[in-house]
Amino acid sequence: MDAVLIRTSRREELVNVTEHVEAAVARSGVREGVAVVWVPHTTAGVTVNEGADPSVARDLLAALSRLAPVSAGWEHREGNSDAHVKATLVGSSVTIPVHDGALALGTWQAVFLCEFDGPRQRRLVVSVLGR
Amino acid sequence: MDAVLIRTSRREELVNVTEHVEAAVARSGVREGVAVVWVPHTTAGVTVNEGADPSVARDLLAALSRLAPVSAGWEHREGNSDAHVKATLVGSSVTIPVHDGALALGTWQAVFLCEFDGPRQRRLVVSVLGR
Amino acid sequence: MDAVLIRTSRREELVNVTEHVEAAVARSGVREGVAVVWVPHTTAGVTVNEGADPSVARDLLAALSRLAPVSAGWEHREGNSDAHVKATLVGSSVTIPVHDGALALGTWQAVFLCEFDGPRQRRLVVSVLGR
Repeated sequence: MDAVLIRTSRREELVNVTEHVEAAVARSGVREGVAVVWVPHTTAGVTVNEGADPSVARDLLAALSRLAPVSAGWEHREGNSDAHVKATLVGSSVTIPVHDGALALGTWQAVFLCEFDGPRQRRLVVSVLGR
Repeated sequence: MDAVLIRTSRREELVNVTEHVEAAVARSGVREGVAVVWVPHTTAGVTVNEGADPSVARDLLAALSRLAPVSAGWEHREGNSDAHVKATLVGSSVTIPVHDGALALGTWQAVFLCEFDGPRQRRLVVSVLGR
Repeated sequence: MDAVLIRTSRREELVNVTEHVEAAVARSGVREGVAVVWVPHTTAGVTVNEGADPSVARDLLAALSRLAPVSAGWEHREGNSDAHVKATLVGSSVTIPVHDGALALGTWQAVFLCEFDGPRQRRLVVSVLGR
């Protein structure tokens, strides 16, 4: 298990962490297997989507805010229920095949830490399995 | 592969199953790896979110019911299309790193079986990989 | 790592790929472990849901189109932001336990490649881990 700390800078933000995941795969020595990217947080998530055009990440955040608005008559009193809902919609982890010692990402794919209740310091965990 | 039966008590419910998953990890003997928690059902899911305050689970169910209402002109005739949609939004599994023989959960994280068309008896499957 | 090409025929479509995943598990020789099904694309996804009644797949696509409409004031200029959002909501992969050399799917479960911006040729990757 490998881990890195990521400091986010806004309440909602998609941080491209592909380099950190690639580095963890390299450190693991695994050539064929999978990498599990995990956040041990309940108001953040991990997703894979387009990394080339930053407008895609902004559209993702806008879409999620329409699906789970900050104010929607939530019961939880901390004012961040929207962030908890987004964490479950996006998910706390992604699992990516590793081939020839590298992530089997498509041309446009990047791995994003999804901050939904920042700014905070977040922990990004990478577990690489295989041989 | 390890499995446990969970009896749900309402149509929609989040059941904290963290103890069952921890027990399966202990039985597996794996110290470093990942645990895959899986439901072999199409109207239930698995998610990781806050376990401390039960209002978070209620907010999650409320949010999902706004995203996929019971009645929304669905084509499927069994009256549970909302449950199928929620299963896909939440997902049928979570994959959690295992470190030092325990789930690498954050302070506030718990694993939930998500019942969307109960009450029923559900099967929760745990596969632990690693060494 | 195993891969197969899937040609989709519409802009939005759920293609049942269970047979391809089962075949990859058989080729891997793994009897106990997990299968990771992955798409290296940012406008497609993978989900597990009911395969028996095709109306469930249609309801899923209809629900996703309500959550992320084609036209919603998106910033990304390629006209497919809805597809990127759906890819993140559904996810780029599923992880399924393998038991006795077969996918541990429930009676009604099938694996679907989710096309959100077709028709296109898509790549479906399967990584099987275990022994």
